Amino acid sequence: MSRGFFITFEGLDGSGKTTQLRRLAAALEAEGLRVVTLRQPGGTALGDRIRSVLLDSRTESELGGIAPTAEMALMFADRAQSLAHVIHPALAEGAVVLCDRYTDSSEAYQGAGRGLGSERIRAMHTAVCDGFQPELTILLLPPLEGSLARARRRNERNVRTRGTDENRFEREGDEFYRRIYDQYVEIARRDSERVVTIAEEASIETIAERIRAIVRERMAQ
Amino acid sequence: MSRGFFITFEGLDGSGKTTQLRRLAAALEAEGLRVVTLRQPGGTALGDRIRSVLLDSRTESELGGIAPTAEMALMFADRAQSLAHVIHPALAEGAVVLCDRYTDSSEAYQGAGRGLGSERIRAMHTAVCDGFQPELTILLLPPLEGSLARARRRNERNVRTRGTDENRFEREGDEFYRRIYDQYVEIARRDSERVVTIAEEASIETIAERIRAIVRERMAQ
Repeated sequence: MSRGFFITFEGLDGSGKTTQLRRLAAALEAEGLRVVTLRQPGGTALGDRIRSVLLDSRTESELGGIAPTAEMALMFADRAQSLAHVIHPALAEGAVVLCDRYTDSSEAYQGAGRGLGSERIRAMHTAVCDGFQPELTILLLPPLEGSLARARRRNERNVRTRGTDENRFEREGDEFYRRIYDQYVEIARRDSERVVTIAEEASIETIAERIRAIVRERMAQ
Repeated sequence: MSRGFFITFEGLDGSGKTTQLRRLAAALEAEGLRVVTLRQPGGTALGDRIRSVLLDSRTESELGGIAPTAEMALMFADRAQSLAHVIHPALAEGAVVLCDRYTDSSEAYQGAGRGLGSERIRAMHTAVCDGFQPELTILLLPPLEGSLARARRRNERNVRTRGTDENRFEREGDEFYRRIYDQYVEIARRDSERVVTIAEEASIETIAERIRAIVRERMAQ
């Protein structure tokens, strides 16, 4: 394989996408493929700096809050750096690149969640990323209520064990997550070739096997 | 005055724009106007963090270089935060806002200097800043050779006194600055209502008086 394969994982916090990404990476590596994994924001030295600004809950008090458009632009700065320094080089060398969140997250979280609108996010994606999209997006979209409960439990655990309210995204109201959920549904409808939605609740093992089958089929095409 | 007046200063490093901005601020304050000054990047807590990432010369070795599109997005993240937290609120309170660099700098430095193209910068400006432009832009554009010599002297002084090559922009070749200069000329031609170009070399005092006259006239309209 002279050129790699680019797969993104999408979904709400608590949807299990990070677990599934790791499972897929392990399975592909076991088959002898070269796999590069990264998360957005983060994944480069610059991205890690951006991530700390974005996710650090101190941000709101120290910086007087981040303007939604500034948050959007920072997300794309991280993405641009990942593309130039990790994703494109890895794909050119034939690796399978698995990315935990990509532009669909911006459209769902900033576009719908923060109300900036899809058109704005898509203009950013063209201007910053030259419109570069993955070959396949795995969208983990179990019923909203279960994801919210898991995200809340995780956040409470973080507060207890680290004494910090780590992820400011997880402090938003349910309406915020409803808008994100609905936008993911809309993205999957619009880009039905690229996006495969896994909506049922099942064991980690069952979903991992399903993802493995989807990826095997797509990579064989 | 129930709504303020937004003025940006543009030009190459070494063009004297920061000095002239300070002179204008002092003159307007002496007339009893409320004046808010800021620079881009910088001017908010978030912006100062972004500025340190962008301008710190360690960036290139520590972070493996910033992708031009990432640099562009970071510039706009800073701008979005300035607009939301400084510029719009100050204008709403009737202040005169003087900003050292704004989107014209992105078009000149990232668009032309780094070759990203004007169209991309203008798309970013629409997506991130809702296309918001100043009432007046003072473009200090003396002949290129003089600006370059001043910028080099300043950089050499920084290297001597601080033992650091502080501003990575100032380590670029002359061709880079030629592209920026030409783009500024093009912006002034295109936006001839908004942009007033001061191209002659004259004393700080002479140019300050000329800027004061231009501002007085525009604010009276």
